[in-house]
Amino acid sequence: MSVLLDRLLSGDVRALARSISLVENEAPGYEQLLESLPARAGTRVVGITGPPGAGKSTLVNALISAILRRGQRVAVIAVDPSSPFNFGALLGDRIRMANHFSDPDVYIRSMASRGALGGLSPKILEVADIIKAAGYDYLFIETVGVGQSEVEIAGIADTTVVVVVPEAGDEIQTMKAGLMEIAAIFAVNKADRPKADEFVRNLRLLAHSRATAGWETPVIKTVALRDEGVEALMQALDAHRDHIHDNADRKSLLLAEKAWQLIQYKRMREVDRQALLAEIRAQMDGPGFNLYRIVRRYS
Amino acid sequence: MSVLLDRLLSGDVRALARSISLVENEAPGYEQLLESLPARAGTRVVGITGPPGAGKSTLVNALISAILRRGQRVAVIAVDPSSPFNFGALLGDRIRMANHFSDPDVYIRSMASRGALGGLSPKILEVADIIKAAGYDYLFIETVGVGQSEVEIAGIADTTVVVVVPEAGDEIQTMKAGLMEIAAIFAVNKADRPKADEFVRNLRLLAHSRATAGWETPVIKTVALRDEGVEALMQALDAHRDHIHDNADRKSLLLAEKAWQLIQYKRMREVDRQALLAEIRAQMDGPGFNLYRIVRRYS
Repeated sequence: MSVLLDRLLSGDVRALARSISLVENEAPGYEQLLESLPARAGTRVVGITGPPGAGKSTLVNALISAILRRGQRVAVIAVDPSSPFNFGALLGDRIRMANHFSDPDVYIRSMASRGALGGLSPKILEVADIIKAAGYDYLFIETVGVGQSEVEIAGIADTTVVVVVPEAGDEIQTMKAGLMEIAAIFAVNKADRPKADEFVRNLRLLAHSRATAGWETPVIKTVALRDEGVEALMQALDAHRDHIHDNADRKSLLLAEKAWQLIQYKRMREVDRQALLAEIRAQMDGPGFNLYRIVRRYS
Repeated sequence: MSVLLDRLLSGDVRALARSISLVENEAPGYEQLLESLPARAGTRVVGITGPPGAGKSTLVNALISAILRRGQRVAVIAVDPSSPFNFGALLGDRIRMANHFSDPDVYIRSMASRGALGGLSPKILEVADIIKAAGYDYLFIETVGVGQSEVEIAGIADTTVVVVVPEAGDEIQTMKAGLMEIAAIFAVNKADRPKADEFVRNLRLLAHSRATAGWETPVIKTVALRDEGVEALMQALDAHRDHIHDNADRKSLLLAEKAWQLIQYKRMREVDRQALLAEIRAQMDGPGFNLYRIVRRYS
């Protein structure tokens, strides 16, 4: 184990892949590995979220190029929506950052959003820590903003970038206002569309009206396919890093939220889901059926 | 307690309100009350969800009137988005079914979407069972479809109605496809808007292509403000009730999902969130800090 850990800490890509497999499969020794990870603050964890079709993967692709130009290393976890509802059909046109798959300074991994037990998979939290140990400068966690992942991701990432496209309609504006709550940075992609300027202006007014604690959510115009606005987005990421730097309160809350999710996973892992279902099936049509009495015995 | 239970079962509204308060506050005896509830299958639980501005509350208002015309009783739980992110601003124009607040055959209650521990509050599950015990014919659970509640509600309701409005744009269509996964019925509200027919036609094609197990999601045009299409929606609810009737598999899975959420709540209630946060705060800047070692002690 200590050999694997040493190689992981030295940035060895095969050791990284093996460590991630160990954690994903809960193979013997995986908890020991996680408990041996040193505290390392170097990796910036950036959540990239937004509705399908906003161009998140294309934007991540462009950000990877910008980071490589700086001589830095970057990892990506692409989170696929999964159980209990299958949004797979939405992913048809997802671009898989194919440009960078063979670059030694880039590590890309797909993961399912949910574990068997529901909720954002705790495996994503654990794999993120493995990647941090390997010393990457950036870790992007990309989620499709349908359902809950766009909210939950905000509990993991240092900085959450919400990617939207310019659109008309008051209702869309209202939905965007909801996303404003989780966005540290707004990227308005496909900003060469008609009426993009008006859209950006409205978002900026909204961001200004909601500025808090020294941070006004910047609204960055990008055209990811043509690499436009990507440096401005990198600068916004840098500015947000400086803003949250030394914010011990925020850091402790994020860590507590993460610990909470991991504890929940471990506590519920002992509950035999199949036995629970079998018991409910056997009893549910009886006259004396009461779910709360079953729940008490599993609690 | 048995006096309260008897009065609750007889449909006494004050006993209902007192029982709900008991459960919400976890006052002594609340678990005993829940474990004494008889199995009652009479109440149809209908989830109403969709994006802000779709007119969900107006539609619920119109459905209440239709149910009262049938001589039946109806209850509503209006779920307000809450912690960890505050979407309160979206609720500014929410119509609170004010028409029916004084009607003895209508019971309306607002609840917060999340408990202190995150996730859809288990209190909603418990309050729903209290309302079922009181013998209402219908229970509507209305949630704003931002974040995760629109997915989770599908685990509680017998039938989930997704309310949308006609809109242009391919991307919106794609997002609607995601909602198709959870919709037993689609209500296209504000169907007097331009291009509504084209929108409805596209949704119907999509519903047809995804029809499964004898059910093709019906797409109902409504103009809730003018009470149009509401009877058609009621008929779709009836048809879906007939469809899921005696589907033991579905019923047992829904009950197991509900039991799971309640067990999770009870198991995590013992974890002292403040102590966890304090421990993280004290240790996080030390050189030997490792979150997984803390997690192990709370698991």
